[in-house]
Amino acid sequence: MPTWVRNCWYVIAWSHEITYAPPKGQVFSRTVLGEPIVVYRTSAGLSALADRCCHRGAPLSKGRVEGDHLRCGYHGLLFDQRGACVAAPGMAAPPRAACVKSYPVVEHNRWVFVWMGDPAQADLTQLPNNYSCCSVDWHYEPGYLHYDTDYRLICDNLLDFSHLSYVHEATLGGSTEIAQAKPEITNLSQPGQRGLRVRREVARVPSPPSYQRIHRFEGEIYRWWDYDFVLPGTLLMRSGGRPAANNTVDRGEVELHSCQTLTPETEHSTHYFFQQSHRSGMGDAELAASMHAMLVRAFDEDKDIISAQAQSLAMAPDFQMLPLHLDRALQQFRQLLAREIAAEHSPAVEVLTPTRPVHPVRTIAVHTEPLLK
Amino acid sequence: MPTWVRNCWYVIAWSHEITYAPPKGQVFSRTVLGEPIVVYRTSAGLSALADRCCHRGAPLSKGRVEGDHLRCGYHGLLFDQRGACVAAPGMAAPPRAACVKSYPVVEHNRWVFVWMGDPAQADLTQLPNNYSCCSVDWHYEPGYLHYDTDYRLICDNLLDFSHLSYVHEATLGGSTEIAQAKPEITNLSQPGQRGLRVRREVARVPSPPSYQRIHRFEGEIYRWWDYDFVLPGTLLMRSGGRPAANNTVDRGEVELHSCQTLTPETEHSTHYFFQQSHRSGMGDAELAASMHAMLVRAFDEDKDIISAQAQSLAMAPDFQMLPLHLDRALQQFRQLLAREIAAEHSPAVEVLTPTRPVHPVRTIAVHTEPLLK
Amino acid sequence: MPTWVRNCWYVIAWSHEITYAPPKGQVFSRTVLGEPIVVYRTSAGLSALADRCCHRGAPLSKGRVEGDHLRCGYHGLLFDQRGACVAAPGMAAPPRAACVKSYPVVEHNRWVFVWMGDPAQADLTQLPNNYSCCSVDWHYEPGYLHYDTDYRLICDNLLDFSHLSYVHEATLGGSTEIAQAKPEITNLSQPGQRGLRVRREVARVPSPPSYQRIHRFEGEIYRWWDYDFVLPGTLLMRSGGRPAANNTVDRGEVELHSCQTLTPETEHSTHYFFQQSHRSGMGDAELAASMHAMLVRAFDEDKDIISAQAQSLAMAPDFQMLPLHLDRALQQFRQLLAREIAAEHSPAVEVLTPTRPVHPVRTIAVHTEPLLK
Repeated sequence: MPTWVRNCWYVIAWSHEITYAPPKGQVFSRTVLGEPIVVYRTSAGLSALADRCCHRGAPLSKGRVEGDHLRCGYHGLLFDQRGACVAAPGMAAPPRAACVKSYPVVEHNRWVFVWMGDPAQADLTQLPNNYSCCSVDWHYEPGYLHYDTDYRLICDNLLDFSHLSYVHEATLGGSTEIAQAKPEITNLSQPGQRGLRVRREVARVPSPPSYQRIHRFEGEIYRWWDYDFVLPGTLLMRSGGRPAANNTVDRGEVELHSCQTLTPETEHSTHYFFQQSHRSGMGDAELAASMHAMLVRAFDEDKDIISAQAQSLAMAPDFQMLPLHLDRALQQFRQLLAREIAAEHSPAVEVLTPTRPVHPVRTIAVHTEPLLK
Repeated sequence: MPTWVRNCWYVIAWSHEITYAPPKGQVFSRTVLGEPIVVYRTSAGLSALADRCCHRGAPLSKGRVEGDHLRCGYHGLLFDQRGACVAAPGMAAPPRAACVKSYPVVEHNRWVFVWMGDPAQADLTQLPNNYSCCSVDWHYEPGYLHYDTDYRLICDNLLDFSHLSYVHEATLGGSTEIAQAKPEITNLSQPGQRGLRVRREVARVPSPPSYQRIHRFEGEIYRWWDYDFVLPGTLLMRSGGRPAANNTVDRGEVELHSCQTLTPETEHSTHYFFQQSHRSGMGDAELAASMHAMLVRAFDEDKDIISAQAQSLAMAPDFQMLPLHLDRALQQFRQLLAREIAAEHSPAVEVLTPTRPVHPVRTIAVHTEPLLK
Repeated sequence: MPTWVRNCWYVIAWSHEITYAPPKGQVFSRTVLGEPIVVYRTSAGLSALADRCCHRGAPLSKGRVEGDHLRCGYHGLLFDQRGACVAAPGMAAPPRAACVKSYPVVEHNRWVFVWMGDPAQADLTQLPNNYSCCSVDWHYEPGYLHYDTDYRLICDNLLDFSHLSYVHEATLGGSTEIAQAKPEITNLSQPGQRGLRVRREVARVPSPPSYQRIHRFEGEIYRWWDYDFVLPGTLLMRSGGRPAANNTVDRGEVELHSCQTLTPETEHSTHYFFQQSHRSGMGDAELAASMHAMLVRAFDEDKDIISAQAQSLAMAPDFQMLPLHLDRALQQFRQLLAREIAAEHSPAVEVLTPTRPVHPVRTIAVHTEPLLK
């Protein structure tokens, strides 16, 4: 049984990573669920193809884009945006079997998504509402980390914020009160939503270093985190702080919106796309840069402990985790994941994952024009 | 069948490697027999715990010592010196199942030992007599090497000094006479001792470069080596040289004491702790430094050939070694090892290696105060 | 079933790599078909022995040559040029079982060959005619590349020059006409020859950058390639170009001879020995250096795409290559290879590959004196 769901949109790149008309040898490629995928821009939007020439297996990303087509850099086979081979050296017409798999691909608020399951089930309504990645109201900086760990360990991390008190003591956390607080956990009930809503608040804690950069709170603050965590591994969070109840002088407030998503590269490695926005017009470029640097530093703290955890687990294949009350959200998400994976592998609902379809069923390629540079 | 005996004291560190009150992220950890172990100093002596939090598997060595306790750096679980979890965020009392394995641990003449088998059988009388590591009469420098090889290949090396003539031609050896000499090999017969005694002598050989640093011999010398090699892989050796019989002028003498021990890290890697002492008051600090440098150079010669041997063997899984007369001691030791390993895995004598005991049976933590800085 | 034929001469080194009387630790060693082999010069020619001491498996290449003998650097066993142990420390006479495998070895036109199959079948008439490696008429520079790929992927590359148009656009190729041309492919029919003859020509193409260094063609040229590709993976090629038919002014001509051979190191790595000669007296030392640099640059282009292909294939064990007409030669060669491998493993024709023969059957050691320095 795999460790991931297939019928999902997975982020493969930030919009700015897919450039127009890349020169030879610079075609964008990234591996998702163990499958290398090449993505390039066409006149109609985007094309996402298996990054492996059907002829002798060379990566197409070693070739070059020619108009809307992609040419293999080994023997020169030319593929159209749907993966059909339209020219091969010395042949009048390439055989129909000469084609590579194409993936539904969509660009939405500066994230580029590929659909990894049955193309016929690709559903645009399942795209997450990552609005702050692309809005005049929010200031964001795109972030990316590569992990050499199973993506589920990072899901675990994002579903239990008690680690803020220990892992992020000097960055995002700053108080053991956060770990003590009991989060409110609910299942998302809207149709098509698959995930959890988690809410945590603490009444009186010191303002963490990251908040002080936005507003110099003079006393303790009330803090809150409110997020959805949805399949395949996406966090959409509003969070913030304001002066604690009996502080009548300080009127400041901090409000943040964060979009984070995990894309398994392989069973043992993960792409992590993230950003945390603050309101536009709050502070200047220096603040924005320092907020992003703080976030990256905090996410490196996560990566350090999670990578160490992964190495530790790799040495002890029989180790059983010990569930405690603080693991409620992550346990529920792991159960949801297991159910969805099992459902995709039940005899009734077979997911089509053809390795060389004669022709892709359909290709979605919506290109959302970015609102802002 | 494993390649090691469990009911033994294994050296995990030199005393100076385990510091008091280590800052965050600097808690000492080393892997022994495939098990990562964290060691820290407490008010009562030492604590050695499994370096894997029972909660979600993060290494405890990423956390910090708080008084006599150790706190996990991921979600903040707090463990006492016997491995019981005494606090977890947001819980009045952690469940009894929340605990990590603890190991009997002992500090003896600047070596820190852990007992890897059944704690009830931990036996202080089995500690080796590594006196020169901690004595006013001897000058020593602590040495450590990491090998990417099975520890038994290094045992082999230490049990056959004929390699001195070839591997250490320019350092410890200096003459093919050493390889020609037939060593005297006896089984250690005292109760509780498990190993061999090996004695080798050569009547007339040039003084090796290492000896000449202590005493400038004017002619050939008589050399001798007299050592015990005991389980799990510890060499305790007196050795030396003096002018050959008919030299009536030179009255010099060299006397050395060496303590060396091998601790398997995994089946394919080894920790090697070593020192070779000369008599205090003999020479100055410069001599001591140059003697140690010579020893390290010689042990690098061993590491070079043994690592090459290990790589060669890894390429030829069917290779059978060809026993020659010079292999008598190492053959006997390998047989002893095989017998002891088999005994630990016979149905009658089951060794307890619980991965998560409710409570450790007992913890030995004797702290020998070093005589000298 | 292995991926290679055993009863073949494999190039293990360029002549200049095997020096006389190497100092300690510098004895030449290279792995062929997974077997590390030590090669050294003796008074009678060459000796090629298994690079693994029969005593405890240390590599003999860590030892030293003493006259015509090779001494192990671990315990000092001494082997003669046929692999028999003639001395061991403290023994009057080593046992007859103390010996290492020896390989038929031959030096021919600056290539040093070892025979990897049954020594009784070693056949000098099977040596390839790599004359331009060692001739006053040709100027050559020896080349070597190490690949971390199955050697058959490189055979494929050399058997289909349509890749010149794409991989070598800026070096050896320069025109898509090359890929369009249909090569003439014939089986080599002389007795003892096992391989293919491939001829490709293009009537009118621009002169490639590499040719322009030899002769500044003023218009388009006629180009041709004529090569034998024989077991185990050797290319012997004449190639060249001259002004296209209707060019009556330019009388220039380029003629090249190239010798290239692939020796599997393991199933997943390969030694690649190559050179491309031009006629002596054509151009100067600067031309020679620039021709060689261009060749190395082109071969790095091959290595780049083939290594990427190998990684791509490693990720997709079920991938099936799609044969196109341009693959005819490489398909035929792969079939020949499969037939020869199967024949060597049929019950009737068992190939002897003793791991420790009592005495090698015979050793061929022909030392061709180089004609030129």
